[in-house]
Parts: sequence; C-alpha cells; structure tokens
Amino acid sequence: MIAANDPALRSWVDVPAESDFPIQNLPFGIVRPADGEPRVAVRIGDMALDLAALHAAGLLNPAEFEAEDFATKSLNRILAKDKAAWRRLRDRVSTLLRHDNPSLRDNEQLRAACLLPVGELQMLMPVEVGDYTDFYSSIEHATNVGIMFRDPENALLPNWKHLPVGYHGRASSIIVSGQDVRRPVGQTRPNDSEPPQFGPTRLLDFELEMAFVTGAGKELGQRITSTEADDYIFGMVLFNDWSARDIQKWEYVPLGPFLAKSFASSISAWVVTLDALEPFRVAGPEQDPPVQPYLHTQGDKNIDIDLEVFIENEAFPAHRVSHSNFKYMYWNMAQQLTHQTVNGCNVRAGDMYASGTISGPTPDSYGSMLEITWRGSKPVDMPDGTQRKFINDHDTVIMRGTCRKGDVRIGFGEVRARVLPALEV
Amino acid sequence: MIAANDPALRSWVDVPAESDFPIQNLPFGIVRPADGEPRVAVRIGDMALDLAALHAAGLLNPAEFEAEDFATKSLNRILAKDKAAWRRLRDRVSTLLRHDNPSLRDNEQLRAACLLPVGELQMLMPVEVGDYTDFYSSIEHATNVGIMFRDPENALLPNWKHLPVGYHGRASSIIVSGQDVRRPVGQTRPNDSEPPQFGPTRLLDFELEMAFVTGAGKELGQRITSTEADDYIFGMVLFNDWSARDIQKWEYVPLGPFLAKSFASSISAWVVTLDALEPFRVAGPEQDPPVQPYLHTQGDKNIDIDLEVFIENEAFPAHRVSHSNFKYMYWNMAQQLTHQTVNGCNVRAGDMYASGTISGPTPDSYGSMLEITWRGSKPVDMPDGTQRKFINDHDTVIMRGTCRKGDVRIGFGEVRARVLPALEV
Repeated sequence: MIAANDPALRSWVDVPAESDFPIQNLPFGIVRPADGEPRVAVRIGDMALDLAALHAAGLLNPAEFEAEDFATKSLNRILAKDKAAWRRLRDRVSTLLRHDNPSLRDNEQLRAACLLPVGELQMLMPVEVGDYTDFYSSIEHATNVGIMFRDPENALLPNWKHLPVGYHGRASSIIVSGQDVRRPVGQTRPNDSEPPQFGPTRLLDFELEMAFVTGAGKELGQRITSTEADDYIFGMVLFNDWSARDIQKWEYVPLGPFLAKSFASSISAWVVTLDALEPFRVAGPEQDPPVQPYLHTQGDKNIDIDLEVFIENEAFPAHRVSHSNFKYMYWNMAQQLTHQTVNGCNVRAGDMYASGTISGPTPDSYGSMLEITWRGSKPVDMPDGTQRKFINDHDTVIMRGTCRKGDVRIGFGEVRARVLPALEV
Repeated sequence: MIAANDPALRSWVDVPAESDFPIQNLPFGIVRPADGEPRVAVRIGDMALDLAALHAAGLLNPAEFEAEDFATKSLNRILAKDKAAWRRLRDRVSTLLRHDNPSLRDNEQLRAACLLPVGELQMLMPVEVGDYTDFYSSIEHATNVGIMFRDPENALLPNWKHLPVGYHGRASSIIVSGQDVRRPVGQTRPNDSEPPQFGPTRLLDFELEMAFVTGAGKELGQRITSTEADDYIFGMVLFNDWSARDIQKWEYVPLGPFLAKSFASSISAWVVTLDALEPFRVAGPEQDPPVQPYLHTQGDKNIDIDLEVFIENEAFPAHRVSHSNFKYMYWNMAQQLTHQTVNGCNVRAGDMYASGTISGPTPDSYGSMLEITWRGSKPVDMPDGTQRKFINDHDTVIMRGTCRKGDVRIGFGEVRARVLPALEV
C-alpha cells in the first residue's frame, strides 16, 4: 500500500466531514493569492498548502526540487520529473500534515504563511497542456451515438472494440473551473435541401468526461508499453468537453470534430494523483473479442469514481441530470496511453488525455444531454418548471466526482462553468 | 511596398546565384553552434546572422527587444509580439545587411561574431508549437481522395465548398528538417473478413503541404476576422505530413486521422515571413458557390510558390516525383485562420496551421504517393530501375519551395527526412 493512502491517517489540519480533500487525497494545483504570484499548492480540507513557501522554508527535499519547481504558474516542471519523485513529494507532504508531526503544526508563523484558505485564492489552470487527445472509450456512449446517428443494428463501428478510438483536440481552449464559456457561433445546415446557415449554436451540450495528465514520456519513435503506462500518468481531473452538436453534424465528415469542440473544454482545478486513486481500482468490463497483445493489461485497471452532473441557474439551485461512474469505461487509461504511443508518438509533461463521454447503462447515467434527452425528444424537467433539451444561456453546468471505500472518501471538487450568450454575429 | 522587399536591394554578404536566401527574403530560425546555446538567427545566402549577438552589440532596437527574445530556443517570444514589431525587426536586419550600410559590414570583429556559416550550425525546431491544425484545402486533392475512396460522381462531400475542412493534429511530433522518421507500427485491417493485424505500416506516404505560423491571437471567445487574419500570420514553412495509409483506413471512422499522422510531421527550418511573400501574391480560384460573409476576403490571397518533391536513396540521387504549386489552394490562409477562430477558439504564438496536401490539376502535380500512383496501381520508376508505390525504408523525401518574380527569387530551402525501418514489434 502507498503510505500516504493509509486510511488510518489523520491530519492536524481540520478537514470537514464529507470533504473531498482528506489527508488521503492531497491533490496538486496552481493557486494565486490576491496580492501574490502563482505557485504550486496541495489541497487539504478547505486549505491550500503553499509548496513554494514550504520549499523556501527548507521543509521539502532541496536536493530534488528547486524553488522554480514550485514558484511557477503550472505543474509542468514537477510533471517533467518521474513517478518516484512525484511519490516522494506527496509522501513528504503527507508526513508534514499528519496529526502527530509537529514540524509545521507547531510552527505558528510558518503555518500561517503556508496554509492558505482556498476561499481567498484564485485557482489557475494547473498545467500548460501540450497536446490534448479525446478518446471515445465508453461503450454505452458509443452505442447510443451509433443508434441515434447511424444504424441501430450496427451501432458500434467495426474498429471500436479493437482499439481505443480517439482524436486530437484543441489544447489552447482548455480552461479551468469557474471560467465562463461563450456560446459559439458557426456554420450549421439544419436542412439538407437548403444552404448552410451561420449563427449561434442551437444545440450546446456538455460531455461528462475525466482526463489524465502525463509526465514526460519517451523520445519520438519509442513506445510506452501497457505495463509501463501507469508510471507516466501523474493524475486526473474532471473534464467537461463542451460540444456544439449542430456545428459538429455539418463539419465533421470526413476528418472528425473541429470547431464543435474547440471553443472550450473545462477542467477541475485540483489534479488528483493516480497514487491517491489506487485504493479505488476495480475490474473493467470483459473485452470481447480479445484485444491485441500490445493492449493487454493485468489486474484491476478501472477506477470506481462516482460522477454527477448538475444544471444550475439563477432560477433554481443545482439540479442533477446525470449520475454515472468512471468504472464503466470499456478501454482503460493504460490502454489509451499505450495505443497513443504505439506508433512512436511522443508524450510530453502536461499532455492531457480525456476519456470521452462517460455514459452508464441506464438513461439516468448518460453523460450528455444528447443522450439524456435522446436528441431532444425527451426534454428534462427543471425545478422552476422549465425544460431543457440542451444547455441554455446563463445555465451553469457542474460536474463532481468522488471515490469511497470504507471510511475514506476522496474527490475532485468540481468543474463548473456558466454559459454566456453568443456575441453578435 | 514593404521596404525590405525592394528588388533593387543588394547585400554586402555574398549571396550565391539561385540561392533561396537573398536580402529580399531574410527568414527566421533557431540555430545552435557546435559549442554554443540556441539562438535566433536570420538567414542570408549561406550565412546565418546571429540576432542574439547583434542585440548584445546594441545593433537591434533595445527598447523593443530584450536579450531573452534572441538568446532562446524558439521564436515564440518574438511571435508573441505583433506584426508591426516583426516588420520593424526585419526592416532593421535588412538595413544592416544592405550593401551601402557600413555599421556591421566594416566592423570586422562583430561581423565574424555575428555571421555564421550555416554549414557549421545545427538547425533546431524554429517554434514551440502550441496547437497544430491540418486543413484539407486543395480541391484537387480532396477530389482525388473522394474518387478513390468514396464516390467518383460525388467526390467532394457537401460541406467541402462551404468551409475549410480541417482537424486538430499532433503538435509533439512535429520535427525539423534533417531528423529521421521511424516507420510506425500499428493496427491495420487489410481484409474486412479477417481480424485486424499488427505490424509496420505497409503504405507509408508523404503529403506535400505548407504551414503558417501565428503570433498571439485574441482571447478565448473572440474572433479574428478575415480582414485581420494576415496580421496574425508571421510566416510559412514547408510541411511534410507523413501518413500511414493502412493505419488511417482502419482507425479513422468516425473521429478522423489519429495514429496514421501523429508519428511525425517534418518542417523546413527557416520561417519565411509573410511580408517576404507579399510580392508573390496571386488570385485564388473562384469560389462557387459563394462563401459565407465571414469568409469573404479581398484582393489576391493566394501565393505563387513553386513546389517540388523528390525521393533520394543511397542508390540514386534526388529524383523528382511531384511538381505542384501553393497557388492551387481553394481556401486561402486568411480564410483558414478566420474559420479556426469563428467559434471563439483562441490562437497562441507558435501555433501551426498546415494547408493539407497540395495537389495540382495534373498527375505530375499530385502531392502524395497515394495520388501519384493512384493507390499503388501506377508505380513510379526510380533511376536505379526500382519502383515505388509508397515510401521505402532508407528513402529520403525532400520538398522544396521557391517564388520568382522578375529578377527576385526567394525560397524555403528544403524539408528533408529519411525513413528508418520500424522497430521490432
């Protein structure tokens, strides 16, 4: 067992009941105090531990890390190190936060300087994303889309069960939770017998996804094998892959989604380490037909992460529209990263790999409005008496994710984004 | 007219006849001397002018540029400035290199320190690519592919003439000319009635493309209009979009090309400024049906760039297999960048936007082996008596591009890459 995951650990920092951030979690993020510069922090309870201040005070391993690794605006310098270094860092932070460790607990001045209330901090993008890939790895989602848009008898395309289908996405427009999303404009063609139109999307949707963040991979031309893959995965975030369904329908043949996705993707601010998620591993679904040898994995490779999506509006509080789970994924993260590099493609520190929409087996577990309302044919009731087929202006979409096992519960906080009306065309 | 483009200009630096790099060009790159650090340079003739040394000597505008803008491993800091700054910098370099300007010419010591023979330099990737988009903007190429793989009667899909179709590509595997390319392995399914296979691609191809590099765009949510677009384009490079046709065929539905492209894309090392290319503007093809208002452009938006592709091998010298021209593009660069941002997608300094394969109207002007050999049905003879359907191990593919008008000729040098055999599966 990873020492920092010990369920018996308690911290001298007060952690509210039902917090996503007990000492067993310790996710990493980038915070900016009201009058300060960005720096690396670890979250515990409602506080952020400032690693730049901690390093300056000599409480982090000075031989392994430099001041610039923490006094910086992204996790990329830390990501460029390896799994062993990430693990030593999290272990060290865990040790400092244990209820029985006095070194920081009893140093009132340093404690005040290092331990910052998250409510007083701005959360920034945790990573500078080099490349971003979006996979398509939920069999329930791929099946639903296949039924709606292609052929109910052959919903999955022939390649789907042989390889984790994915495509390159736009890295520049990945934004952090809390940042508003502008409704995009673009070309659509609602009626095939009429010319295309131009204007705001009418079918703005969320996609419930999770994404993993990598460390530095191998050189171009080298592969990461399925047994090595987890060593290159630093951690995970919630991922809302905003989608404009009408723009997508018109533009996506033959080269895939483009402007329908590139206007924004929202992520949660705290990167939960893969180490912290290890206790919540579960077996994935049986893969039949068997996958090719290069995609073989051993042991429990899925993770039991309870996922929820809410719509919130000035007229009503957060209303749940989906309840899914990351454990449903057909293709696991090790298989995704292995496939990504099998052709020699290089991976960089800060790359992001999203799962694709995470739908479960029942309609209440579908991960997009497209599926929940079945292309708008089954609108969803909101608490104020209105209905939603897709997402309206001024709606806020919130996603949450939590893991529970015994008395331990860890989570991702949330990814939240409000939709602003389109700019004038 | 842009002063630095004056056809009458001559330099005190000796420029060989038929050089791609007279004083009217002055492209930017990143060079590394054998015993030194990377720095920004401008090429003239067979020499590279070291801008870091020039700045340190006080010969570049110290108010506008810092030492770190030139003593660095990418052009991104310069790209983050605006068109006016780029133009002042090129103008200043042009002035210093004019035959009648003594300030550098007659300073023997500084000249020896600043003017480095390119043969003694390593050329590095000129930019750190943030996002990379590959368009599909040659009507001849799209038509050829449509005839081969879909329906000769409806070769172009319905959206093709309404918007510049494109997709997100992999930025991490863009490499500079001279770097070898490893033949990729992956899944293919040559026979639909049999299971997929795993192994080296059998159908390795080049794609003759050009790409433009951008400065910093607008914030997320804002659009770059078609009249503004050229202001955000710094310059262009030759682009070989290496492709594995058999991997692509099996993987690409429904989300587009992925591993078939992400193993390598090769670019030329010197970024030719859009300013230097202005004298070679020509009208593009008529767009019928008329494009939507947001895609309207005025004036000559295409560029007459003569393009050639060669295959070279130990057994024979460079043998030309294609002779095309960038002027054939149906969609111009301003339209591509406008379309890319119409949904509010943000553009960053160092982004790269490739044209898609540039095929002309005749078979000798097709920009890929796929088209030249028509899926391998018409192999091409090589000087040693062998034939090529696609690209063999140990072949080197070379692309060149030149512009001519009156007595002025400028060019891109070349992009060159040799294919190494696949690693053991």
